[in-house]
Amino acid sequence: MAVTVRRRVDFPMIDMADIAFYPRIYDLAHRCFEEAWALMCGVEYHEMLYEWKLGYPVVDIASTFHGPLRYGRTAVMTMWIESVGASSVVWRYRLEDDLGNLVWTSRQVTVGVHMDDMSVRPVPEDLRRHLEACTPPEGA
Amino acid sequence: MAVTVRRRVDFPMIDMADIAFYPRIYDLAHRCFEEAWALMCGVEYHEMLYEWKLGYPVVDIASTFHGPLRYGRTAVMTMWIESVGASSVVWRYRLEDDLGNLVWTSRQVTVGVHMDDMSVRPVPEDLRRHLEACTPPEGA
Amino acid sequence: MAVTVRRRVDFPMIDMADIAFYPRIYDLAHRCFEEAWALMCGVEYHEMLYEWKLGYPVVDIASTFHGPLRYGRTAVMTMWIESVGASSVVWRYRLEDDLGNLVWTSRQVTVGVHMDDMSVRPVPEDLRRHLEACTPPEGA
Amino acid sequence: MAVTVRRRVDFPMIDMADIAFYPRIYDLAHRCFEEAWALMCGVEYHEMLYEWKLGYPVVDIASTFHGPLRYGRTAVMTMWIESVGASSVVWRYRLEDDLGNLVWTSRQVTVGVHMDDMSVRPVPEDLRRHLEACTPPEGA
Repeated sequence: MAVTVRRRVDFPMIDMADIAFYPRIYDLAHRCFEEAWALMCGVEYHEMLYEWKLGYPVVDIASTFHGPLRYGRTAVMTMWIESVGASSVVWRYRLEDDLGNLVWTSRQVTVGVHMDDMSVRPVPEDLRRHLEACTPPEGA
Repeated sequence: MAVTVRRRVDFPMIDMADIAFYPRIYDLAHRCFEEAWALMCGVEYHEMLYEWKLGYPVVDIASTFHGPLRYGRTAVMTMWIESVGASSVVWRYRLEDDLGNLVWTSRQVTVGVHMDDMSVRPVPEDLRRHLEACTPPEGA
Repeated sequence: MAVTVRRRVDFPMIDMADIAFYPRIYDLAHRCFEEAWALMCGVEYHEMLYEWKLGYPVVDIASTFHGPLRYGRTAVMTMWIESVGASSVVWRYRLEDDLGNLVWTSRQVTVGVHMDDMSVRPVPEDLRRHLEACTPPEGA
Repeated sequence: MAVTVRRRVDFPMIDMADIAFYPRIYDLAHRCFEEAWALMCGVEYHEMLYEWKLGYPVVDIASTFHGPLRYGRTAVMTMWIESVGASSVVWRYRLEDDLGNLVWTSRQVTVGVHMDDMSVRPVPEDLRRHLEACTPPEGA
């Protein structure tokens, strides 16, 4: 099942046009991605990075910006897994604000690598099982 | 009384030395400062900025970095008010991690300004009353 | 003709894996985009924003991350225009480091808006002429 | 003698009040600090970090914000060394814009550490000699 993480929209995210500056949407998405691991797989991302030496950098992203994210709102990020390959995991993001306005959707291909040398690593079986259970929300 | 805000330490805060990059401690402090207004004065900072047209930029900061903030920890930011002047408010910050390790202390002088032209504005009486009640925590 | 902007890779761009954190590639791309306007069209982006009240936020991005951008390198960003519509401009980015390693390619659809109310605006004819002259580099 | 580094003020530095957001002044200062090492001591900071395993994190900062840094301006950062201790180096910063408006001054105490374990390290003699030659500009 998809997971959802909520975050305040903080002042540092906002630009001179009074909307979240778009690279900070990606920054926000990474912060939510980090939180998602515990919700999806029961493991903290910092444990994966430091103890398992396993990270998931992105290699390909497609995103659409549907509307502005404004100061004073809460970001509501829903995330699910499109597919799990031998070493890759394809994430989907749907960002709304707390009024239900659609802000941003994204499809991100990540690849598992060893944190010491960035060599590609297969998706561990226990992660795969949990990730594959993160199916899209209804209507997505 | 002092207020405390907790935030996850996210990956984007961490540098190549595996500790929070120091300008991002100031960024974190601003995010906590924003949350503090509701706790201290019952008003959201975005309402002050957008509806009252009142902001509090910093004009003077003194900070000491006591120890590293690491990935996987939670930032625990305690804030109180040292003094309220005609238009200035002096904030104090004490940042620990969730293990109780002291990370950073800071004294920040802010000045109330009109958001349209940055002209100095007196501290409204209702804010003053609430801010003056934010006395230091024991032992600070 | 395509334009190229060079920037040092600064410490704040680097993450704990010793490579540029990917949202900061988008941040870097925006900084280069800003510089590109003067090179492409002879107008500074801040003049467009403040005096013409014309901005070009992104609405759609597709990006591929080909390899890491490392500290100590220089970012070499080449930019050209794929097409100019009634109000949209499609940018292409090709980021290499100064050793010629390919880092990132991106296609970004931007739309001209009025900075006061974000209403869509047609591409001014003088901009259109200059933008259409920014053809791809050889081999792209 | 003091050294000076110039940087464009980029859009990502600017907040909703149309001025550089103050934590990004510290971020900018670090980028200039990095450039300063080559000018002051003839060594690139990334070489110090990666090859010498020597870094200079800050432990104490005092700063005054004198006036806003605006979009469209160029940041002109002048840096010199106040003193060199057994392992510490005290930096001074003076930030103006390209119109000569004073923006920010700062005094930052840094301490040399080994990048692997953050243990304190003495200032190498060749660095000390170069750093001590970075005397204040006239009138500072």
